[in-house]
Amino acid sequence: MILPPIPTPFDRQGRLDPGAFRALAEALEPLVDGLLVYGSNGEGVHLTPQERALGLRALAPRKPFLVGLMEETLPQAEGALEEAKERGAFALLVTPPRYYHGSLGEGLFRYYEALAERMPLFLYHVPQNTRVDLPLEAVARLAAHPQILGIKDSSGDLARMAFYGATLKGFRAYTGHAPTFLGALALGAEGGILAAANLAPKAYKALLQAFQEGRMAEARALQERLFPLGDLLAKGGVPLLKQALRHLGLPAGYPRPPYPEESPFWPRFLPVLEGLREEGWIL
Amino acid sequence: MILPPIPTPFDRQGRLDPGAFRALAEALEPLVDGLLVYGSNGEGVHLTPQERALGLRALAPRKPFLVGLMEETLPQAEGALEEAKERGAFALLVTPPRYYHGSLGEGLFRYYEALAERMPLFLYHVPQNTRVDLPLEAVARLAAHPQILGIKDSSGDLARMAFYGATLKGFRAYTGHAPTFLGALALGAEGGILAAANLAPKAYKALLQAFQEGRMAEARALQERLFPLGDLLAKGGVPLLKQALRHLGLPAGYPRPPYPEESPFWPRFLPVLEGLREEGWIL
Amino acid sequence: MILPPIPTPFDRQGRLDPGAFRALAEALEPLVDGLLVYGSNGEGVHLTPQERALGLRALAPRKPFLVGLMEETLPQAEGALEEAKERGAFALLVTPPRYYHGSLGEGLFRYYEALAERMPLFLYHVPQNTRVDLPLEAVARLAAHPQILGIKDSSGDLARMAFYGATLKGFRAYTGHAPTFLGALALGAEGGILAAANLAPKAYKALLQAFQEGRMAEARALQERLFPLGDLLAKGGVPLLKQALRHLGLPAGYPRPPYPEESPFWPRFLPVLEGLREEGWIL
Amino acid sequence: MILPPIPTPFDRQGRLDPGAFRALAEALEPLVDGLLVYGSNGEGVHLTPQERALGLRALAPRKPFLVGLMEETLPQAEGALEEAKERGAFALLVTPPRYYHGSLGEGLFRYYEALAERMPLFLYHVPQNTRVDLPLEAVARLAAHPQILGIKDSSGDLARMAFYGATLKGFRAYTGHAPTFLGALALGAEGGILAAANLAPKAYKALLQAFQEGRMAEARALQERLFPLGDLLAKGGVPLLKQALRHLGLPAGYPRPPYPEESPFWPRFLPVLEGLREEGWIL
Repeated sequence: MILPPIPTPFDRQGRLDPGAFRALAEALEPLVDGLLVYGSNGEGVHLTPQERALGLRALAPRKPFLVGLMEETLPQAEGALEEAKERGAFALLVTPPRYYHGSLGEGLFRYYEALAERMPLFLYHVPQNTRVDLPLEAVARLAAHPQILGIKDSSGDLARMAFYGATLKGFRAYTGHAPTFLGALALGAEGGILAAANLAPKAYKALLQAFQEGRMAEARALQERLFPLGDLLAKGGVPLLKQALRHLGLPAGYPRPPYPEESPFWPRFLPVLEGLREEGWIL
Repeated sequence: MILPPIPTPFDRQGRLDPGAFRALAEALEPLVDGLLVYGSNGEGVHLTPQERALGLRALAPRKPFLVGLMEETLPQAEGALEEAKERGAFALLVTPPRYYHGSLGEGLFRYYEALAERMPLFLYHVPQNTRVDLPLEAVARLAAHPQILGIKDSSGDLARMAFYGATLKGFRAYTGHAPTFLGALALGAEGGILAAANLAPKAYKALLQAFQEGRMAEARALQERLFPLGDLLAKGGVPLLKQALRHLGLPAGYPRPPYPEESPFWPRFLPVLEGLREEGWIL
Repeated sequence: MILPPIPTPFDRQGRLDPGAFRALAEALEPLVDGLLVYGSNGEGVHLTPQERALGLRALAPRKPFLVGLMEETLPQAEGALEEAKERGAFALLVTPPRYYHGSLGEGLFRYYEALAERMPLFLYHVPQNTRVDLPLEAVARLAAHPQILGIKDSSGDLARMAFYGATLKGFRAYTGHAPTFLGALALGAEGGILAAANLAPKAYKALLQAFQEGRMAEARALQERLFPLGDLLAKGGVPLLKQALRHLGLPAGYPRPPYPEESPFWPRFLPVLEGLREEGWIL
Repeated sequence: MILPPIPTPFDRQGRLDPGAFRALAEALEPLVDGLLVYGSNGEGVHLTPQERALGLRALAPRKPFLVGLMEETLPQAEGALEEAKERGAFALLVTPPRYYHGSLGEGLFRYYEALAERMPLFLYHVPQNTRVDLPLEAVARLAAHPQILGIKDSSGDLARMAFYGATLKGFRAYTGHAPTFLGALALGAEGGILAAANLAPKAYKALLQAFQEGRMAEARALQERLFPLGDLLAKGGVPLLKQALRHLGLPAGYPRPPYPEESPFWPRFLPVLEGLREEGWIL
């Protein structure tokens, strides 16, 4: 499965644009296996609770979708969980509480277990953003919960992926790190939830299929061809992704201020994007 | 100046308790030079915008007070700024946007400058929690703004304090790191905004006064005497601080779930607290 | 190609044992494609220059062998280079100078280029031990030198492997990180120089061959089966490797004092080793 | 006490220059309280055992001197210890074994205790170079040994200094971090072993004396005045220190290749050095 973490559109003044959000989701959905809303590239932490609800209500996905939940405490998480459930999300994608992570202790397990009682979820390990660890021992313990279905691991640390594959049977691992996508698949990942799949959905689906059908040479060639796309996007983040989507004519809007409208990586990214577009891999 | 970052009381179910908040603030205020609300130990990030406003309206400090602002974007920060201004706060205490910090770039300056246009502020460097850096070059650049008055630096990295003291004249530096308090003063800090000052306000005021009056031997003896209090509190964080205040009969409430009600450091902390209480240093 | 970084035997008093060294090398060589002497697990940094020469002269490998060179300056590296050349090593495996790495600057390139003028070499990135980075930009620049043949990358950071595969054509990448071995192969690694290949040489050769022949299911099964061996060995290091080899009756000797004779990981490692031995994968 | 870690002179071809070494030591010794040979700025790790002995025999200090020992194992450390003892060193200054630090375990204590049986020593914590930690718990345990006299802590992490001062009575702490020197003194350091004391010995002696005599305003003014000297030297390291000493006419020689002869910090450092020289603070 290939899912894009779709961006949340803001206008240049930083106002949420629900119409654009729906249009963007509808443009991307046919090309992929489902959507991730408010995930790593969805600026979930840039919304007030009201805006968060408003945005979600603007969408009506037909394919399975996940909703990201990057809150700090259980009372704050409850509203977001209810909305996701009500809107028919397949599962939540949940980062650990982070601001006071050093004194969280067993609260880590209470947090995930309290949410999982009410709705299926995936763990979400994205230390580039959360800047906290989700130790392998904790993942193994949480994996035993029947409603904790798997993990999205965006760290790019494939020793973690190898651990999931070798020791957690039935636990579904998705990578969020495009530059090592094929490596993750070889170590047991089920698919990718990739920012780059907002831009090159067919390419990542083709790569996955080549791998699954044993066409390794083709998979490797595609992995190498896509490397600069995923690599630069990992460096440029939300501003670069939104700029690229705008360039392609999609209503992705702008990052919320004070994040920059234009990415310093754009001059390096544009030729990569255009090169792949010429080969038919973009959207 | 000695200011405590006062905790925000929640009941055991995690509900904000505005009455307790006011009672706690009124109990502490007479013992110190002012208050920090929603700061490092104030769980500002654990509140919805509504709760945040509700809590602030419950307080009526007579001494100067700062309001912590740990938001991610300008639109989210605006409400908090307005409330702080309306309630008569002396200044804001502002952490950098953090979740997408890697793609913030010049947005760091836009963020602080946009807020400083509307209200005086202090920078807030607390990497234990924010997990992002606030480089010295950035501090020096921001220090030139007339409404950016200074910094609270909780890192305990005194090379930063030495830099402020030696190169940023008129820029007011406060330390948030009790275990090195006297070292920070020697390198130019103006005072402390210290979690431990919620428990031992007189002691930290006495230490500061001894330093200011050149009684270094007395200052050093007090610094060493207080070391375990500050050191353990830095490790135990909010759960330990609230547990200690409850033990002393103050309405500090509980950390918001899933954070633990009781700290694993309590058995080591209790004798330290009681020892200092016997000597008359606690509250 | 699968190469083991063979350990350097010391007796319990910490004296180098050249006879054991030769016996160990001769026992392992027939099972693998070549040897790495004085590499990550070879304690090259635990030898005086005289001992280093003495040890090397005790060996007479018939297959291609690499010699590790983990020196701090060019004058110190020269003796080691001469000995390796004289003994017929295929190439050096060279870590960056590390103790004053922060002020090395362009010296990094002078170092590698001066050595490469005299003998082919591989870069050696093993940040667990050297604790310095070898940035991708530096690797790319050095890869242009005709006598810098490739890299052994033990970091387990497969984004690096993906970078080599996608951007450095003809540059030979070997992984030193067993837990992600198959991931590294999928991203373009040519083989492995693996501590675990001292214990399970046939298994890693079989894994490599299965991958190369497109038998991915078999490769994955073997990767997962070998995961605990590589994972624990990465954690236990030299003391664990030597203890395991002694257990298997090989003359690996002891780590040099003050390193411990027995590893705290041994109780967890022994059943893994015995389990694999029963399946015929050990030596 | 103020001690400089004196550099070890090499000529431009990287050959050790024992005559220059002696001349440099004799030029500096009268201005300070003693010397540190082969310490943080002494490139001890850049010498073969023979060179190390040769250099030490060239010196004949009259004041107390320490000898740095940055070896990896006990057998390697023994020769260095014997030479230091024979030459009349007051004590060793000993870093932890580092290359395989992750599997050292209790070997850390065996290492220090075996050396301390034979000669008094100071622990040496300089994580910028060794890149390993020396945990406070380990320091506390080692401090109980009668021949382990104290520590040189160059980390600049003054929470460590506060810990020594508050909890390890009689344990002698020296800082190696000039930018925070006065902060370290305030927290209990006994003095400094400072690269900058090679250049401005009188200034650091004056700062220490002002502190000891309670003239805090003077101490603070001097601390701030010296800040850029210590700060830039911490960044520029050995190449900058040697370049500055050569500029002042002292026979410090060059860093060993491939380290650069000239520091990129020199253009910023020269005016600082000249400014202090005009005020009479340089040598």
